[in-house]
Amino acid sequence: MPLDFAAIRAAQERIRPYIHRTPVLTSRRLDSASGAVLFFKCENFQKTGSFKARGATNAVFLLEDTIAQRGVATHSSGNHGAAVARAAKLRGIPAHIVMPSNSSKAKARAVESYGGRVVFCEPTQASRESTCATVIAKTGATLIHPFENEQVIAGQGTAALELLEDVADLDVVLCPIGGGGLISGTAVTSKTLRPEIIVAGVEPENADDAAQSFRAGKLIRVDKPNTIADGLRANIGAPTFAVVQRYVNDIVTVSEEAIVSAMRTIWQTMKIVIEPSAAVSYAVIMQGKLEVQGKRIGIIFSGGNIDLDALPWTT
Amino acid sequence: MPLDFAAIRAAQERIRPYIHRTPVLTSRRLDSASGAVLFFKCENFQKTGSFKARGATNAVFLLEDTIAQRGVATHSSGNHGAAVARAAKLRGIPAHIVMPSNSSKAKARAVESYGGRVVFCEPTQASRESTCATVIAKTGATLIHPFENEQVIAGQGTAALELLEDVADLDVVLCPIGGGGLISGTAVTSKTLRPEIIVAGVEPENADDAAQSFRAGKLIRVDKPNTIADGLRANIGAPTFAVVQRYVNDIVTVSEEAIVSAMRTIWQTMKIVIEPSAAVSYAVIMQGKLEVQGKRIGIIFSGGNIDLDALPWTT
Repeated sequence: MPLDFAAIRAAQERIRPYIHRTPVLTSRRLDSASGAVLFFKCENFQKTGSFKARGATNAVFLLEDTIAQRGVATHSSGNHGAAVARAAKLRGIPAHIVMPSNSSKAKARAVESYGGRVVFCEPTQASRESTCATVIAKTGATLIHPFENEQVIAGQGTAALELLEDVADLDVVLCPIGGGGLISGTAVTSKTLRPEIIVAGVEPENADDAAQSFRAGKLIRVDKPNTIADGLRANIGAPTFAVVQRYVNDIVTVSEEAIVSAMRTIWQTMKIVIEPSAAVSYAVIMQGKLEVQGKRIGIIFSGGNIDLDALPWTT
Repeated sequence: MPLDFAAIRAAQERIRPYIHRTPVLTSRRLDSASGAVLFFKCENFQKTGSFKARGATNAVFLLEDTIAQRGVATHSSGNHGAAVARAAKLRGIPAHIVMPSNSSKAKARAVESYGGRVVFCEPTQASRESTCATVIAKTGATLIHPFENEQVIAGQGTAALELLEDVADLDVVLCPIGGGGLISGTAVTSKTLRPEIIVAGVEPENADDAAQSFRAGKLIRVDKPNTIADGLRANIGAPTFAVVQRYVNDIVTVSEEAIVSAMRTIWQTMKIVIEPSAAVSYAVIMQGKLEVQGKRIGIIFSGGNIDLDALPWTT
């Protein structure tokens, strides 16, 4: 097992000065619509706009001084890159963020605004990894992998830890799956604190590698997933899949249309901005894909970073 | 004077069971950008999506039983209509909401979702008033005017009351001006609790009737104001103007472009949905139209109701 609950507790103490304890919001209107009692953990309000600040901060602050001084590196087109850049800035060390050349300017600017050095590569997984390896070879920086890193996963688990501290008697917790860092941390936390809880992963149908893997009992890749939920395009990793197999009760998928509709409903009803990846959990409920009647459901809104110029219902 | 602070205190007790005590949010990023310390009172999270729920609830619950039974009526193309409909539903009495025939379907549906009866009229002020008068003559309903009503104004003043209870030592409070209900309640509350506070009204340049009136010392109308801030198109009323003259320190105006830019910045940075009328205060700060360096500024985000299909930066 790649992590235990003690690591998550320790992460909570370590990162406390650097992150927000985000609010848990409720909506009577969405409760009525769903027949459930919903608790939304708002990581869209987190530093850097997503839960990724948790894991990156934990991993960066755990580095020994002599190693930390050489900097950190990662490859990311999105939220993890900004989170690593910010964590490195807080620690006072350099961060090299490898981004595909087709990344939006807004995302590159976000990384730079936290003091990160952006290194562009070709938009392929191979180029990302080789470019990142080259940066590391040159600089001596330490790789902070977005999900194949125990300390990153431990940090991500603190979102669910706060949720369960703030809300008693949850029956179900819903969490999106990309590389599997968030769900791994969420599952270990939830099952440790409340063994009877149901932990359900959610995925876009168009990026259902974890759901397929879960049913097959072995890792199955989905190449070039075509989903608006840009945070969930990564394939689940072997270590995180092992946690999912052990702790997660089910994985449910939804269509692209359902994701957009759920995102719009959340914006309209709750007056908050969430990104498509964060909307997948509520899409599962809207589509009636999970039995939720009368249940107390925790939902982790994973982030709020979205290009306001390219909203799916206006393009 | 149309109201005193005791009426606002009483309103707070009266409406407490029916409204949200909305959160006051902060943003380190916007503090850095402005050089001030900003406190955002989030009435976009209020019931019905705007502060209007406060005043309407106070006025509707103050009616004597025999009068209340005959119902309430108002004319509104927006937030006040939904607020009156909801207050009437809570009280168990009918509500007749006169809306111009060119109102969006979404707004009419919002009123109906709270149980209000929608009565369409021609989209002119004369038709609104005559249609509303006819409804009242037929039904015996009581008019709940959106701002020329002391008890509505008293209810609106409870937003600032909560803000000043939650945040100590504010130097300035900023508040948008439409018909003047919100600023009247805000000014009386703020100057009573903290006489040295600066109360500044904000308006779109394209709907600057209150600013013009303030400078001229007499009511000046702006007909057919062409502003995206749909909540601020009404001309200020005589009773609310009297309060503004007595208590408000200044009225500052901003362009349409500035309003859109401020709204977008708030969505992007704070991950919350506010409507154009709510963005005018921050537009004033972004444009450097007010001296805010080092000051503690309270900003009332008046509402969050906006048509997501017609965002100003995508059309």
